[in-house]
Amino acid sequence: MRTCPPSHLLSAPTAAPLSDCPCPGADERPVVLTGDRPTGALHLGHYVGSLATRLALQDAGAHRLFVLIADTQALTDNMRDPARVSRCIEEVALDYLAVGLDPARSTLFVQSCVPELAELSMLMLNLVSVGRLERNPTIRAEIRLRGFERDVPAGFLVYPAAQAADIAAFRARFVPVGEDQLPMIEQTNELVSKLNAVCGSPVLVPCQALLSPIGRLPGVDGRGKMSKSQGNAIALAASPDDIRQAVQRMYTDPGHLRVSDPGQVEGNVVFSFLDAFDADKTELEALKAHYRRGGLGDMVLKRRLTERLIALCEPIRTRRLALERSPDYVREVLKAGCLAARAEAARTVSDVKRALGLPAY
Amino acid sequence: MRTCPPSHLLSAPTAAPLSDCPCPGADERPVVLTGDRPTGALHLGHYVGSLATRLALQDAGAHRLFVLIADTQALTDNMRDPARVSRCIEEVALDYLAVGLDPARSTLFVQSCVPELAELSMLMLNLVSVGRLERNPTIRAEIRLRGFERDVPAGFLVYPAAQAADIAAFRARFVPVGEDQLPMIEQTNELVSKLNAVCGSPVLVPCQALLSPIGRLPGVDGRGKMSKSQGNAIALAASPDDIRQAVQRMYTDPGHLRVSDPGQVEGNVVFSFLDAFDADKTELEALKAHYRRGGLGDMVLKRRLTERLIALCEPIRTRRLALERSPDYVREVLKAGCLAARAEAARTVSDVKRALGLPAY
Repeated sequence: MRTCPPSHLLSAPTAAPLSDCPCPGADERPVVLTGDRPTGALHLGHYVGSLATRLALQDAGAHRLFVLIADTQALTDNMRDPARVSRCIEEVALDYLAVGLDPARSTLFVQSCVPELAELSMLMLNLVSVGRLERNPTIRAEIRLRGFERDVPAGFLVYPAAQAADIAAFRARFVPVGEDQLPMIEQTNELVSKLNAVCGSPVLVPCQALLSPIGRLPGVDGRGKMSKSQGNAIALAASPDDIRQAVQRMYTDPGHLRVSDPGQVEGNVVFSFLDAFDADKTELEALKAHYRRGGLGDMVLKRRLTERLIALCEPIRTRRLALERSPDYVREVLKAGCLAARAEAARTVSDVKRALGLPAY
Repeated sequence: MRTCPPSHLLSAPTAAPLSDCPCPGADERPVVLTGDRPTGALHLGHYVGSLATRLALQDAGAHRLFVLIADTQALTDNMRDPARVSRCIEEVALDYLAVGLDPARSTLFVQSCVPELAELSMLMLNLVSVGRLERNPTIRAEIRLRGFERDVPAGFLVYPAAQAADIAAFRARFVPVGEDQLPMIEQTNELVSKLNAVCGSPVLVPCQALLSPIGRLPGVDGRGKMSKSQGNAIALAASPDDIRQAVQRMYTDPGHLRVSDPGQVEGNVVFSFLDAFDADKTELEALKAHYRRGGLGDMVLKRRLTERLIALCEPIRTRRLALERSPDYVREVLKAGCLAARAEAARTVSDVKRALGLPAY
């Protein structure tokens, strides 16, 4: 089994045919596709929801990891303010590199730089009805959340088909998602199967969801999931002071007034965070039992959590600061990643077009 | 004013950067974009509706003519039978060349070979609501005609935005259309204006409809417009026998039983055809007057029309037969046209992406 990391492509001339990989053999490990919309710096919710899984996959080395900065998808509901999206592209790339995604082992790329994804999206759109898109539960919820109703931008309504194209273009076998995204995977596989039927051959491959072992991380205010727009997030590259303040603000159990009172663990944000970030599960279970009995103060827990979070975030912050001083390096990484991603997507899209009988002039 | 005909690009290496035109100066003539869905050989309805206008524009030389074989658009309602579309691409190209479109003066290209059109389409989709697309009168009529209702493929509902992207990508000033297509031009200009507003600069240009001087050509059976699927068409490259038979079948005035009877000119298919194809308007008016008075037989008119149509179609048929023996030439024409079209569209799409702040890795 041979690998073709994007770094091999760093020195490849851009005029080279995109479908020719300079490596001597193809990498046959199953592909994992994952990514984020660039609408803000990444935070601990992203870490728990998907970054940790990506790092584990990267370290295990059994899969090829394609990590997409989904700027085109972010524009589907940010088209009135494209700068919000464009200025976050390199921010997200910095976060990726700082958290440990390694361009020698994982392909980091920008969606809008791979036109083949738009081509496949447009073809996918012919295989899904407007009614089917409107019935997608994820889209229904997101349309409600944004108050779009019938004024929903067409690009937003159809983004599940575009996402299906992203996944299919890389022939991804696995897609790390949250539970709320399962309807997207279902719709992707519907489209893959329909396009294969039209092509008369299994040009595309179906994919499977990789659910994060931990559910959603709550916001520090305990209201819903962590989200930058809700102001309840802790950035991945948060400073020790930021972390201390954020943990200080965290909701615990409002009935736990005195240290000696018995406390609630369920719905207690500090325990939710400890569940996500404290590796010592035995000690954590003992702390939960103690808290339930009474006699364990919030401050002890918050100090423990603060230490754990600083231990996680401080190396990320340090690496990020160093990377911020090397914007050329970050751009070179993305450039090489886009080149490698295009090579991969171009192969698939050209196979699809050939199977449909479309010419290649 | 300099021109850059696609033939200049015939020998350009495909690896050359697409946005670099090898010509020493840019062609600043206003662009006309036009085209056809490849779902069958072209017929006299196409000739009257748009091919004649294209030839006149080409001969006048005051515009740059881009002629699109809209295979991607044809797939929006033919995705279950892509072969119907793919096998017609070169058929339409043969018709174009046979009718007199000259690749040295006009750029003939295939939509699916210009991925930049898909990129711009996907961006346009973010600027139009589903409701607005559903209110487009042309789309409403077409959805009814096809019996789609809520099962309308998303690609079909959004094709006005994709068509807007085609027009905008070539910065076309003029688009020859039938009256039923005017809402498409309106929607294109809406999208152009919205995208320019988001870009903060007039990256795209608005377009104007060029209405055909002659309205719709009826089918030979007099039922609605000429259409291959209705079996009431005369192919552009029809043989003299085909033409004789088709004219013979033509509906005239059912009340005009004897030669001596007064006849109706309005709604008389033979006269509709003579209006479209008989250059001698004085003689034609005299014939109409004679027919109305009575004493002019249908056979006289049909013989005249047959002569006119054979005079038009026979050179087309001869050229088409010759071209059919040179498939490599036809492919070279399309290849050069696609290269030139990509160069043009790539310039626009790269301007749009730059204005939106999207990177160019």
